[in-house]
Amino acid sequence: METTHLNNRIAYKNLKALSKQIDSKKFQLKNLINEKRRFKSCSIKSKGFFFDYSKQRINEAVFLELVSLAKETQAKLQFRNMMQGKRVNLTENRAALHTATRHFGSKKIFPEGIDVYDLIDQVNIQIKQFSKNIHNQILKGSTGKPFTDAVIIGIGGSYLGCEFVYTALKDTVKPFMSLHFLPNVDIDNFGRVIKTINPETTLWVIVSKSYTTTETMANLNQALWYMKKYNLNPENHLVTVTAKGSPGDDPSNPVLAAFRMFDFIGGRYSVSSAVGGLPLSLAFGFDIFTQFLKGCHDMDTHALDASEEKNIPLLAALISIWNSNFLMYPAQAIIPYCSALSKLAPHVQQLYMESLGKGVTKDGEVVHFPTGVLIFGEPGTNAQHSFFQLAHQGRPFPIEFIGVVCPNYDKEQAMSKGVSNHQELWANMIAQAKALAIGKESTEPSRCFKGNRPSSTILINDLSPESIGRLLAFYEARTVYEGFVLGINPFDQFGVELGKVTASDIREQIALKNKDAGHNFNSLDPATKFYLNALFNKELYMK
Amino acid sequence: METTHLNNRIAYKNLKALSKQIDSKKFQLKNLINEKRRFKSCSIKSKGFFFDYSKQRINEAVFLELVSLAKETQAKLQFRNMMQGKRVNLTENRAALHTATRHFGSKKIFPEGIDVYDLIDQVNIQIKQFSKNIHNQILKGSTGKPFTDAVIIGIGGSYLGCEFVYTALKDTVKPFMSLHFLPNVDIDNFGRVIKTINPETTLWVIVSKSYTTTETMANLNQALWYMKKYNLNPENHLVTVTAKGSPGDDPSNPVLAAFRMFDFIGGRYSVSSAVGGLPLSLAFGFDIFTQFLKGCHDMDTHALDASEEKNIPLLAALISIWNSNFLMYPAQAIIPYCSALSKLAPHVQQLYMESLGKGVTKDGEVVHFPTGVLIFGEPGTNAQHSFFQLAHQGRPFPIEFIGVVCPNYDKEQAMSKGVSNHQELWANMIAQAKALAIGKESTEPSRCFKGNRPSSTILINDLSPESIGRLLAFYEARTVYEGFVLGINPFDQFGVELGKVTASDIREQIALKNKDAGHNFNSLDPATKFYLNALFNKELYMK
Repeated sequence: METTHLNNRIAYKNLKALSKQIDSKKFQLKNLINEKRRFKSCSIKSKGFFFDYSKQRINEAVFLELVSLAKETQAKLQFRNMMQGKRVNLTENRAALHTATRHFGSKKIFPEGIDVYDLIDQVNIQIKQFSKNIHNQILKGSTGKPFTDAVIIGIGGSYLGCEFVYTALKDTVKPFMSLHFLPNVDIDNFGRVIKTINPETTLWVIVSKSYTTTETMANLNQALWYMKKYNLNPENHLVTVTAKGSPGDDPSNPVLAAFRMFDFIGGRYSVSSAVGGLPLSLAFGFDIFTQFLKGCHDMDTHALDASEEKNIPLLAALISIWNSNFLMYPAQAIIPYCSALSKLAPHVQQLYMESLGKGVTKDGEVVHFPTGVLIFGEPGTNAQHSFFQLAHQGRPFPIEFIGVVCPNYDKEQAMSKGVSNHQELWANMIAQAKALAIGKESTEPSRCFKGNRPSSTILINDLSPESIGRLLAFYEARTVYEGFVLGINPFDQFGVELGKVTASDIREQIALKNKDAGHNFNSLDPATKFYLNALFNKELYMK
Repeated sequence: METTHLNNRIAYKNLKALSKQIDSKKFQLKNLINEKRRFKSCSIKSKGFFFDYSKQRINEAVFLELVSLAKETQAKLQFRNMMQGKRVNLTENRAALHTATRHFGSKKIFPEGIDVYDLIDQVNIQIKQFSKNIHNQILKGSTGKPFTDAVIIGIGGSYLGCEFVYTALKDTVKPFMSLHFLPNVDIDNFGRVIKTINPETTLWVIVSKSYTTTETMANLNQALWYMKKYNLNPENHLVTVTAKGSPGDDPSNPVLAAFRMFDFIGGRYSVSSAVGGLPLSLAFGFDIFTQFLKGCHDMDTHALDASEEKNIPLLAALISIWNSNFLMYPAQAIIPYCSALSKLAPHVQQLYMESLGKGVTKDGEVVHFPTGVLIFGEPGTNAQHSFFQLAHQGRPFPIEFIGVVCPNYDKEQAMSKGVSNHQELWANMIAQAKALAIGKESTEPSRCFKGNRPSSTILINDLSPESIGRLLAFYEARTVYEGFVLGINPFDQFGVELGKVTASDIREQIALKNKDAGHNFNSLDPATKFYLNALFNKELYMK
């Protein structure tokens, strides 16, 4: 990545020089992992979170330079500044205080003179009380029936993280209520949701900081129409999570309850705020949400306090930089050997790609190299039977394997080939990392494995709320650390603006035609004209 | 891709030369799309399938050379040979006859003297009768209750395509039965499935050609244990889809029904065989499955008959080759603006990455360049709020947008900003392709959009079985065409072998320890030893 911020760093220059040796024998993974004490020196355990980077293509010299780069760029100081409420989101001139939502016993902070912890505690007290009232049936639907389901209307950061945590925990904790997610403006998304709910026992939770997000507003209107159809009062069924003063924070549109969002917490970092807190408390109870926050806090504390050499999210960020900026890997896969973590990759995909896919540094300097890698993934062993052919013999990409020490359903397991299902799962996870690293020679070219494919392995203890909190906060900390070292602002997202503006122009054309059937699209470019004509003349198009 | 197969082609050399001009002004998308008749000349409609490649970074010269490359490599002849049952899977010395499963009125073929259509018709007659007997409650569970659910035990190609079609159709057609997929050996995958079914009314469908796939056998054992627990007879609840002579085809283990798989159809191409046919017929009835096959057949016929210049899957394959081998894009996203198509990307991920991620050509020559691109995707507009920041301002990647002209749930739509939800969805789909191509200049670097991001747009008519069949067969044909032009065998997968062998060694160690608690792992490498000790001493590890 060619930027002044990086190119002037001594460590960056040294890393460039080291990367020129990457094809030498000593950098081959099959040799690296045979080094004495390699595994011990390249693995860290902290607060129930284990990280093994022994199968990454780095030697001690690279490790030391990466650590130096973190020190030169003052990564830890930037992290501390973030947690203290300094305005680290420079382009939007805001703090980034997602860590404040899980502040357990930390010393109070007063950014801009505001007692942020107190603000957050107030919202959490409200969530606790409200979810209790729902579970105890003190609050009921407008026909007097208790609530059984909640539909979360919100898109992107307003649901992805929450969906990940809900999916991860729903077999660990028996839910009080089922959650359904309605992010997409696709009318079939709405159609699918209403097939599975009872209107009288459904709570609608509208999550939007600005309360202007097009998709969310369209689905809100759809929900209001639906309640009207069943003669239900939105005052008994509608809940908002939004910023103070937004159009959703309007007493003339009374709702059952309103929960506050803050401008110092961005969507993709908002799982531990009311955005995740309200739905997760509705589903599992506030106590479970608190345990989840405790896990996040564990990881925050580690990310803040651990030295560069032993700091798990910081090292993961540095390794990611080595892989993308020096070894030129364009992508990274996240492969949890755990079905319950199936929504982790989509969450991290947003968190990471929206945070780090930028055209400029935080100082406004244009970056002359693609930023951000592509994140994708599916649970293992499924992924082995899907795209691992390419991982082994086609285009290589680094992988993060994730293992869960204790599965939920551990008691009644049939044995196959002398092992239980959970043991089989682990045998595969261990084997894949090893096989990708070492490879195998063969005289038959089609059975030849070059190896030298890097990976890390993460272990979490179980699928408890604490463990899931640690995992979530690990990816948050890793992402911001990568931004801090690269000199990129991981908190803004100006890149989504152009699409919105362009969609708005096209929407206007559609609205005109809806009003006046005589309106035509002749002034538009041929492609847009064609698509809009297809949209308005479906039968004709399909002939 | 440096191979004799390609480097000696005149068209390949010409394309190399043309790609050197790619940074010139005339190749900028904002200029290309303004060319007269661009949209008309770069879009094709055939049998209810529309393909627009006007926003790809190709001009007429590139187009002509790509077509020449297809002719030089005899892509269409290879496709015809495939459909005729020639042994196009060279390394495994087999035919690849997935198209034979939807042969509607085609002239009979007799590869190796065998009447393949007749073989397939026999299986389909059996599927038709069996699913009818289930729906008519002629066949019932061992306690006399009719079946309500089917659990599909199979991994990779044995379920991904079927899951895609099931998810796409389940709001179009009211299912007779619910399908559940149990691919992962993860015991929590099993735990999650049994939470949602009634053992007495559940059919278990075991899908495995070899009937030795480790995960599938482990889950079969788990299912057998579960039936025993509830005193249910596997003879009334178990169904197999497997090859003749496999361990599953054993009369001493009687099952309710057995359906045959053929060695001339590979897993990832097997949706239209019994692998998809049985579950989809159980879910929706055999008539719906037949309509789906009809859609596949439409696309097969087009792929076989249309000239190179107007052949949709072949052109899509050639564009993919241009993007990966000449413009060096390492990835491609599939973004259906349709929630019901949410499982398309995971299916194509397997289909494409397992088919084309190879280390050798079909002639056994080592390839000196990474093969296969990374496929990933989420439905739009969700993806816009997830990773499109990176698409617009970070690392660029080509995108395939997919639109559905008629949604399922089209009647009752609230209006927002003067448009319906479905219109809003389309406004966004059209806008994103346009914004990515054109970009936008700005004096503020953070609001600058370079544009020049390529995409194609596909339209299907609706979510009918025919339309989904066409979409499925399009990706199949595109994938094999890409293999044929590149000279890669898209039908084998030797790259998954090493992981299996390594896992087997580790499994053996675990089994030894299960038998004899005194067994230790001291002879193993430090990483493997550590993970196995964690697995066997969970409490100690978690301390």
